[in-house]
Formats: sequence, structure tokens, C-alpha cells
Amino acid sequence: MNKEVGITASKNDDFSEWYTQVVIKAELADYAPVKGLIVLRPDGYSIWESIKESLDKKLKETGHRNGFLPVLIPESLLGKEKKHFEGFNPEVFWVTQSGDSEIGDRLALRPTSETLAYSLYSKWIKSWRDLPLKINFWNSALRAEITGTKPFLRTSEFLWQEGHTVHATQDEAENEVMEILNIYKKTIEEELAIPVITGKKSEKDKFVGAVYTTTLESLMPDGKALQMGTSHFLGQNFSKPFDVKYLDVNNVETYAWQASWGVSWRLIGGMIMVHGDSKGLVLPPKVSPIQVVIIPIYYSKEDRETMILEANKIKDSLASNNVRVELDDRDNLTPGFKFNDWELKGIPIRIEIGPKDIAKNQVVMARRYNQTKDDISLDKVSETINLELENIQQQMFVNAKKILDERVVRVSEYQQFKEELKNGKMIDCSWCGNQTCEDKIKEETGAGLRVVPFDGTQKSETCIYCKNSGTTNALFAKGY
Amino acid sequence: MNKEVGITASKNDDFSEWYTQVVIKAELADYAPVKGLIVLRPDGYSIWESIKESLDKKLKETGHRNGFLPVLIPESLLGKEKKHFEGFNPEVFWVTQSGDSEIGDRLALRPTSETLAYSLYSKWIKSWRDLPLKINFWNSALRAEITGTKPFLRTSEFLWQEGHTVHATQDEAENEVMEILNIYKKTIEEELAIPVITGKKSEKDKFVGAVYTTTLESLMPDGKALQMGTSHFLGQNFSKPFDVKYLDVNNVETYAWQASWGVSWRLIGGMIMVHGDSKGLVLPPKVSPIQVVIIPIYYSKEDRETMILEANKIKDSLASNNVRVELDDRDNLTPGFKFNDWELKGIPIRIEIGPKDIAKNQVVMARRYNQTKDDISLDKVSETINLELENIQQQMFVNAKKILDERVVRVSEYQQFKEELKNGKMIDCSWCGNQTCEDKIKEETGAGLRVVPFDGTQKSETCIYCKNSGTTNALFAKGY
Repeated sequence: MNKEVGITASKNDDFSEWYTQVVIKAELADYAPVKGLIVLRPDGYSIWESIKESLDKKLKETGHRNGFLPVLIPESLLGKEKKHFEGFNPEVFWVTQSGDSEIGDRLALRPTSETLAYSLYSKWIKSWRDLPLKINFWNSALRAEITGTKPFLRTSEFLWQEGHTVHATQDEAENEVMEILNIYKKTIEEELAIPVITGKKSEKDKFVGAVYTTTLESLMPDGKALQMGTSHFLGQNFSKPFDVKYLDVNNVETYAWQASWGVSWRLIGGMIMVHGDSKGLVLPPKVSPIQVVIIPIYYSKEDRETMILEANKIKDSLASNNVRVELDDRDNLTPGFKFNDWELKGIPIRIEIGPKDIAKNQVVMARRYNQTKDDISLDKVSETINLELENIQQQMFVNAKKILDERVVRVSEYQQFKEELKNGKMIDCSWCGNQTCEDKIKEETGAGLRVVPFDGTQKSETCIYCKNSGTTNALFAKGY
Repeated sequence: MNKEVGITASKNDDFSEWYTQVVIKAELADYAPVKGLIVLRPDGYSIWESIKESLDKKLKETGHRNGFLPVLIPESLLGKEKKHFEGFNPEVFWVTQSGDSEIGDRLALRPTSETLAYSLYSKWIKSWRDLPLKINFWNSALRAEITGTKPFLRTSEFLWQEGHTVHATQDEAENEVMEILNIYKKTIEEELAIPVITGKKSEKDKFVGAVYTTTLESLMPDGKALQMGTSHFLGQNFSKPFDVKYLDVNNVETYAWQASWGVSWRLIGGMIMVHGDSKGLVLPPKVSPIQVVIIPIYYSKEDRETMILEANKIKDSLASNNVRVELDDRDNLTPGFKFNDWELKGIPIRIEIGPKDIAKNQVVMARRYNQTKDDISLDKVSETINLELENIQQQMFVNAKKILDERVVRVSEYQQFKEELKNGKMIDCSWCGNQTCEDKIKEETGAGLRVVPFDGTQKSETCIYCKNSGTTNALFAKGY
């Protein structure tokens, strides 16, 4: 494979360039003609479909249903919850014309749909019998990103889901927030093999308009934290301006309690960064468009026929076991070129089948994630591959978890904080809870407060910055 | 059920009002705050999910894959194919601002994605080995509708899929056009139980930029034709301005041949109109969010317990057979109210279970579509219901087909044309092929040329209008 086709940037030395090359050369995505926008090619979209299918199933099992909201929101509606509007206003795309006519009230392209959804919910909800109302929307959000756009991580339009739920009591709404966070954690860890740390965002970084925001954070190989999803408790902050109320069992009119939550295709970006290597993409089997590629090896016409025949037998046997399998029978390419091509694309398992293998009633199985090879018996290909796919999925998570655990370090001195940060670590420390200290740390080190973890070791140390009594544990890191 | 809750308009006397009431009161959709836009509530979206799932499966089985395109298209790109641009320009929403900044090149909200897709395809396609390229996009399209907006039928944003394929030869591209048309026909007839007539659009009504457009037309109870989907042969009309070319086997640079095709949530509108009745929605079992509703009937606390217990047994047995079943155990509502409620929502089968039924080891099964009831044995509920769901699905199609066949009438005199049109008929006649006659007929009768059917009886009559030699059969009707 020539240099131009393969990955030419080093993951260690030029992480950002490496990332972009993997996305483009593995044909997951491409740039659209408008700056900041990307297109998903079939392999990239297929990963999103896998994530969507897995998450959608869990959401339906827990009583959520899907709906559709239009992308256009009138300015007047978006402005109804002030903090929310101020938060999103700088990055809103505005429609001002339709055909040759000017539009009176400007129309925002959905940056998020709280305001639109709740203006409708207030019409739909009448009594306690209509609650809980739990609707999810698979759509895209639009937020004009001027600088530092990066496929999947920061784009002006991104695919996501946004869930908007309404509950009779505060307890129920808060339980919803946590139920969703757990569903997200399960999906991210089990499908994408990315370990996450869950907890709350600080007041400063919570969703604009929320009472509090819970988050799932992971750490990328370049030492930056990536927010993988959020689940917000909205309290009655939106139900009051939007009149989302219900008649309770005693016929008393009551404002409802609300939650909203979302994950986006950013998950794909995290997966690329956590698992990819110098040869390109490394895909967890569960989300890989193709799980096994079979490459027949031959140097004569006669061998070709036999190898293709045997390869097709394996293909059929795997396919009938629901393995997503492809046979690469392109004649114009060498086996070596094909190996590199499928490694770049991150396909979990490669099966090589040549005359010598067949003579020994075996084939070669090569694992993408750890670059190991084994001979496996032709009689047991299907069961071996099935076990191996499960094993790879688990092992990729175990490896990523080990790395994450090693890279989160507990410190009690600010000097140490700064040193470990330079080493690409995520910093676990005590924090007084004041935004002043959070701001100062950010200013001086570039690291933000990523999450106040739920399972933080609540050591009663003093604040890493001001040395006042530490009220809580917090994790700091640089971000994207 | 009080009058305000149920359908108060007559399907025969005020079809338009009847339609809107069904959509809103059955809770399929609601109006968004921006004129011309609607929201899908979970029952409406669930029908779209069923259509999508069925169609997506067929597309994947025939080698199509999904992708994602952003909603924003630069004006310069949209204008690259002139006729295409002129066709869509009057109804384009334009983004001119992002945050507080003005945008230089205005951005169109996707009215359709030919231009965007093909600007990318020209980068992705290098040689004959990259063909055919068959990508489908599940998204929404935006076309500003100023007048006569109607949920599902005419809205400024609508859910749809748009497929865009590239082929090495004209033959292949034309085969694609027909393969898709057949997939659409199968989906519409087998899932939605709506019979369609397939054929070509006239030159006047073809897709702007296409060589020709094939269409699926159905006839609604008010005598108007509804276009259910289209599949276009684009020839090289787009490949030339967008430089979609490939190196053929002899290394000669060649312009590719293209097809594009789409169906939208308009299919849901057609389904409502064809099957609905005075009590509301009537859903074909395959797309109904709930296929069977069980209503326990009791007037004492003791009976209640027994009925709920028995109802739950039936529910579990049906659910384990993959029937989408719901038990309506709401205590505050009478059985009569519940009957009306579920009839309004169009649920295909209702099971009533009361003390007298249980005593006879049976339950009552009521079919929504023809309002008939039968006692069925408790021992065979599951198998009976499964057969019945299949039977209802088929029978709904048979009934609709019979009505369509009766309403398409062959005429050879223009006077007869006008009379039959007034009777709500679709007119089958000979046409000389000139747009002058097509225009005159439209002007004088309001009926448009809907389709030149593939299986039209090619009688060599004279043109219904000009009396010159008839070159082809054509179907005329009023439209939406």
C-alpha cells in the first residue's frame, strides 16, 4: 500500500493529524462544501446505525417512544427561557428568507429542542394520567462552530438523539436522569468498548437552563477528556415559562418536573481515538460494519478457484451464524495490499486462506486490535470466530479501562497537579466547590473541571487551589 | 365518548376536515408553532418507523447502504444544474446569519440533495471498480409551502428518504430506477395496503433535471390522485455539470449514469385517507403501533380481579408471539369510552373479556376495519389472532384494490371525461403526447396527467382532446 493511501501521521507525535487521516482515509466521513460540516459515508453511518439500534432498544424497553420535531424554531419561542437562549444564541443559524420573501420572526435551526418540545407538551399534558411522558427524538442539532472544527468532535451539524421527559414528581424526574445515564454508560462501555467516569458537571459547565447536569467522561490518548453524553435534571426551570403543568389526583394544578438528555456521533470520534493505532481504525466487533474479512491467497489460476470455493464456504457458514462477513476476491490487488486496506478500515478479524492452509485443514485468523495471528481448524471456523468476536469486544474494553485507570492520578499538591497534567494525566483532587478556584485552575493550567464523580473517594483534604477545606472530589483535564 | 373527543366531520361530506380531525385526534401529529410545519407524536412516528424498517431492509438486501448529508447547501452549488435550481428556488429556506454574523454565500436548507451528493460523488468515484455506488439517506427535506398545508400531505419540512445511485451504463441506471419502483410498490401495497398504479410522469411533471420520472399513483376517496413516490432516471444531466465520471476498464474517462428516488411520510397521509372511516383511523396491522388491545369488562371489584388476571394471560401469550398488544386497565373509564378511544386510534383488533365470556371459555374479538365481531375460544386466542392479523392485512388491500379498480374508468369522449371526473373518477384515456392537450385539459377540468401507466391498455384511439392519433394511454385526475 503506498504512503498516500495509508496513515502517514503518527498517533503519538501528531495526534490531531493522525485522527483526521483515519476518519478520511478509512472512509468514515468527508468534508461537506460548507466549512464545519461533514458527510457520513456508508461505513461511518453504519457505525452510527449500530449505536442507534442498541440505544433505541434500551430506550424502548424502559418505556420511551420516539417522535419528530421540525428543525425550525421561531426566535420568540427560543427566547422564552432566558439563560437557555443566551447560552445558545451566539451559535444559532438563522433562516431569514423563504424563496424571495423575507421572514418576519427569524427562524432558528434547532440547536436543541427543549423550547419547541415543551411548548407542545404544555398542550398535550392535562392530568397526572398523561405522565410520565417520555419521548426521544433521533435528529440532528445545528450549532455554528467557527473554529477548530473536527469530524465527529466539533461540527456545525451533528447527529444525535435528544430525550425530553416530563414527570409528576421531582424524585421521578431525578430517577429518569440516572436511568438514562446508566443506559448511556452501558451502551458506550459494551458497544464501543470505551470506559467512562460518571458524575456531575460543575455549576459553570452545566446545561444552560438545567438545575444540574450529569455527564459521562472519558480520557483520550492525548490526555484530553471527552464528554461522551449528558443527562440533565431541569427541575421546573422550563415547566414554568412553558406552562407544562398537570392536574394531580386531587385536581390541583401542578407544574411538572423535567429531564432532558442526549448523546451524539461524538461517540464515534471517541471510539476512533481510544482504539485506533498507527495502521488506522480499530473497530469493536459490535459496531463494525464488517466483522470478518476473508482473503484468499493464490498465485495460480487453479489455486484461485479452490481458494475462492473454500472462502465462500467459510463465508456462508459465518453469515448463517449472523456474522457480518465479506470475501475480498478482487483480482487486481495483492494479498499484502488487501491486508493493509482492511487494517486501515479496522475490521476486527481477517481470515487468510491459502493452499498450504487448506492442505493442513486450517486457516489463519488475524486479530486487528492486538495484531496477533492463530491457525484455526477449518472444521471449527464458525464457533471459533464467534467466541473470538466476543473475546475481542471484551478485551478491547479491558485494555482501555486499564489505560484509563492508570491515567487518572490522585494529587494533593497544586505543583503535582501541573506536572501530572503535562504527562497527559487526568487529575483527581479535592476542590472547595467555588467557581473562583475552578476558573483560576483553568486559567493557569488549561485544565477544566470535567466531572464531580459519583464514586469519588471522598477524602477530606483541602482544596487543591485555595487550601480551604475540600468539600468534594473533582476530576480535572484539558478538553476538546 | 363526547363529541369533542371523537371525529365530528363526515368523511363523505367534508373530507378535508375529516382528515385533519383524524390526524390530530388520533394523536398522530400536531401543528408546530411555525406555519406549515408539523410534529409527529409517538403513534405517528411509530408508523413511520415501521415503513422505514420494512423499506430499509429491502434496500439493504439489494446492495444499498445509508449515509448522512448535512441540511445546509451553499447557493452556488444548488445553482450548478440550472433547471433543477429554477424548479426549487421559489420554495427554498435561506440561512443568511449565524449568531450575529452575516453569511456570505447564502445557505439553502436541503430541498433535495442531488447537488450536494454529486459534488461528493465526483471525489469518491475514480474507476469502474467504485461502481455502482448506491447510497440512501434517511433525512428530511425542506420546501417552503405557503398555502394549503396539510399534515403529511403538504408540509414545509417532511421526513423522507432520498436515494442517489451512480452506474457505469445507462442500462444499469435504468434498471435501478425500475428496481426501486418495484420495491416501493411492494412496500406500499404490502405494508400500507394501498394499491398503486405505476408508470411515467409526463415531461411537464417530471423531476426538474431528470430525463424521466417514474411514479406510483393512488386514488383517494375524494377522487384526487396522490403521488406516493417517484424514481428518476437522471441520465448524465447531473454527472456532466458535477463531474461524476470514472475510468472504464480500458482506462477511458467516462461520465456516469445516475438515478435518484424517494418516498416520504406522505405515505402515512395516503393510508389515513384510503382506510379511515367515520370513527377515525383504521390501521393495517403491519404498521399499527399496537395491533391488539384487550379491554376487560367488569362491574364489581371481584370481577375486576378475575378479568385483569385473564386479560394479562392473553396479553402475555400474544406478546410472546410477537404481537404488539396492550391491556387497557384504566379504572376511571367505561368500556364504551375505551372502545371509541381505540377505534379512533385505528387499532386493528379489540379483545373484550367479561365474566360471561370467561364462563363460556371464550372472548370477543372485534375487527376495526369492517366492524365485525366473533367469539373466539380462549384456548386458541394466540393462533386465532395471528391468522386474523394476516387476514385483515390482506383483506384491507383487497378492498382498497376493488375500489381503485372501480374508480378508474376508460373513456373515449371528452364530454364523458368531464362527467366521470365530476363523479370522482380517475380517467383512463388516449393522449397524443403533446403538452398543449395536457395543459388544456388541466385548464378546463382541473385534472392533471398523473401517470402514463406501464400496463396501460394501448388502444389505438384518438387523443381525448385534439382527436389526433392517440400515441399512448394516460390517466388523468385532480391532485392534492
